[in-house]
Formats: sequence, structure tokens, C-alpha cells
Amino acid sequence: MESRDLRALSACRLFSGMDIKELELLIESIRHNEKKYHKDAIIRFQGDEYNELMIILEGQINAEIHNPDGKKITIETLNKSDAVAAGVLFASDNTLPVTVVANTDVKLLILPKKTVIGICQKSENFLLNYLQDEGNKIMFLAEKIRLLKFNSISQKIACHLISLSRKQGTDSVRLHYNREQLADLFGVARPSLSRGFSEFYDQGILESESKIIHILDKQSLLDIISG
Amino acid sequence: MESRDLRALSACRLFSGMDIKELELLIESIRHNEKKYHKDAIIRFQGDEYNELMIILEGQINAEIHNPDGKKITIETLNKSDAVAAGVLFASDNTLPVTVVANTDVKLLILPKKTVIGICQKSENFLLNYLQDEGNKIMFLAEKIRLLKFNSISQKIACHLISLSRKQGTDSVRLHYNREQLADLFGVARPSLSRGFSEFYDQGILESESKIIHILDKQSLLDIISG
Repeated sequence: MESRDLRALSACRLFSGMDIKELELLIESIRHNEKKYHKDAIIRFQGDEYNELMIILEGQINAEIHNPDGKKITIETLNKSDAVAAGVLFASDNTLPVTVVANTDVKLLILPKKTVIGICQKSENFLLNYLQDEGNKIMFLAEKIRLLKFNSISQKIACHLISLSRKQGTDSVRLHYNREQLADLFGVARPSLSRGFSEFYDQGILESESKIIHILDKQSLLDIISG
Repeated sequence: MESRDLRALSACRLFSGMDIKELELLIESIRHNEKKYHKDAIIRFQGDEYNELMIILEGQINAEIHNPDGKKITIETLNKSDAVAAGVLFASDNTLPVTVVANTDVKLLILPKKTVIGICQKSENFLLNYLQDEGNKIMFLAEKIRLLKFNSISQKIACHLISLSRKQGTDSVRLHYNREQLADLFGVARPSLSRGFSEFYDQGILESESKIIHILDKQSLLDIISG
């Protein structure tokens, strides 16, 4: 494997905690393929069985839903070092819920399911990362469902922050997600997310400090949640 | 471990594919605890860190949300041979989103996280089961979110069946979930679920045959989805 591909791979969350040397030895010892696609190529169709884990070594891909009326909706954009649909790989129903399209020229590492199992058994690091990734995805989706009962973005923000504050036992809460993930969690576009937070800052209810949000007026948050 | 506990454990999805002898040897070789709780005891609080996997050897537990106003909502009931919150165990934020309460007298097997990792590395069977369980949970939650945009139970049923029919490439679709799981997926109580399906049967749109649903009138389903 080329050294810049190795660097891309070492930045993949599933391989975090491994150094380049360790990774190189690992990759040399297992069955794997690399595959290139040109911009706009369809890599996998919605409904295809997903039996090999794909990791992006170069380029960018989109996960899209193609409706029967020809309309397509982009669900997610994945970049260099991202793994594709790690959760689907081992599900009983392992058919892809999305069509995977090359957004630029793309180079992928392809690991058959058996190889992924082999890596889990060789590397405790990889196993922990994989299980953590799945666990995080489950927690994210469960929180998204919990927040879907609220209509307004301010209610969603308030409810999410109150729940983090309870869990973390402090009014200065650490966000687990970046802005893009938060927008997905709340089911809104990024500008709406920013506006939602700005209103709270302007009203003196919240104050932000990098990834920490200070809750200055908890009662207002609780009032907003109860509508 | 007592033989009836072993039998309970062998019926746990995470250990499926292992025979009792294999399981006995495995359990004897690893660090584990058993713990008993009386009916109504609180086993874990919402917000507690979850560092040990619990598997029910005897009895029944409820996963509840306790609101600040004292109201409690039962989210899920778990029975003998069920594993508790396997997804939370490895998440970065491994705090329990629910309070776990003994619904009857209960006996639990307690496996520290390190032990679970050890079992994954010893038993390919267990590893595959664990990853499959996580994958299935992710697919379930993603489908639940997809269906939440529909208001009526008939729309949800129609959309779910059309999507299964596309994936399976047939109009005789196999349901992945039992009635309880379907009710959870559609966010309705079981009687509403039954009424929803009955209406489709009465109108000759669907016909059921154990876990297979025959779609007799696809166009009607598509019309219902588009409202």
C-alpha cells in the first residue's frame, strides 16, 4: 500500500490508536483490494447487499436516496478516511439503504467481511473502535428520535442541553457532536442551527466557549421545552 | 454456573450458535459475577455509567424514563436471556438513557467490558452476534426515523412494505420484525398496529401468511404513501 494511502487509513476512526508501522504490518497480513472510481460513477446501488467494508483513501462520496420519480436526496457526504456503512455490514438485512456515488475521483480500500472479523480478532484497538462506532451511532439515532417530538429548533436545543447537563452533572456541558452532526441530530440545515443557538446567546440564556456550552438560565430552557 | 442459568444464557442472542458445553467452558474461563435483585429494586439509574454488560438469567426488567415531575414511562421490557443495553456499553458516552428496574425477582449475569472484549476475541460466533445485534439496532432506528415523517399508521405500514418489497425484489415480502417490534418501529400501540393491518386485509390490499405479507394491490399502497 502506498504511504499516502496508509496515512489516509491511519486517520480512519476504526484504526485510531494504531501507529503507521503497526497498520502497515496489519494491512500486509490481510486480504484486501483497492478500487478506483471516476467522478459521478455509481459505486453501489440502494438495495445492493453490502458484504465488503469500504474505506475512502482518496476523494469524496455521497450517500443518496433515488426516488422512483427520479428525484435524488443527498443523505450524507463522506470524505477521505471515512468508513462507509460500517453498521450495515453485519446487520441481518445487510442491504444498503442508500445509493453510493463518487462525488470526485475516488479510491477505496475494500475489506471483505471475513477480513474485518479477522482484524477485530487480531487488534483489540480496532475491535474497540468498531464497537464504539456502532454504539455511538445507536446513541445518536436514539437521541434523534427523542428530539423528533419537538417542532421547533429552540425546543430541540433546550432538550438536548438539559439532558446533557443532567448526565454530566454540571451546567457547563460538553457537546459530543460537531456542527454538522448537530444539524443532522436536530433535523435542520446548518444556518437554522446557527440561528437557533444565536438566539439563545443573544437572550443571555447560553454562553459558548469552544465545545463547552454554559447554561446561564436553566429555567428558561425548561420553560421552552414545556412549550 | 448452575445448569438452568447456562440454558438461559445459551438462549441469549449474543451466544447463539454455541452449544451448552462450549458455553460452559467459556464462562468458566472468564471473569464474571452473578447478582440478584428483589422485585421493584432499582438496578441502575438513568445517567449511570454502564461499564458491565448485564444478561438476564431469571426474571424480567423494565427500562424506564423517570421525568423530573415524578412521571415514569416504560420504554422497554426485557426478559430471561435478553442482554441489557449492549450498544451503550461501548459508546463514547456510555451513560444509561434509562433507569433499569426489576419487574420480578431477578438474577443477572454481569460481564465487565474487558471480559466482553475477551469473549469477542475468543469466540468468532459471539463477535459476529454482537456486531449483528448492533447493526440490526442501527437499521431499526434508521427505519424508525424514516417512517416518523408519516402521520398515519397506514402510511407507515405502506411505506415499510414498499421498501421491503424493493429490497427483496418480490411482492411477497418477509417481515424482519415481530409484532412488538413493528409496534415500536411505527411508534404505535399493538392494538393500533393490528387495526392498521386488518384494514389492509379487509380491503384486499394485503394478505398475510405467517411472517410473509403478500402485496396484492401495490398501486393502492403507493397512493396511500403519497397521501
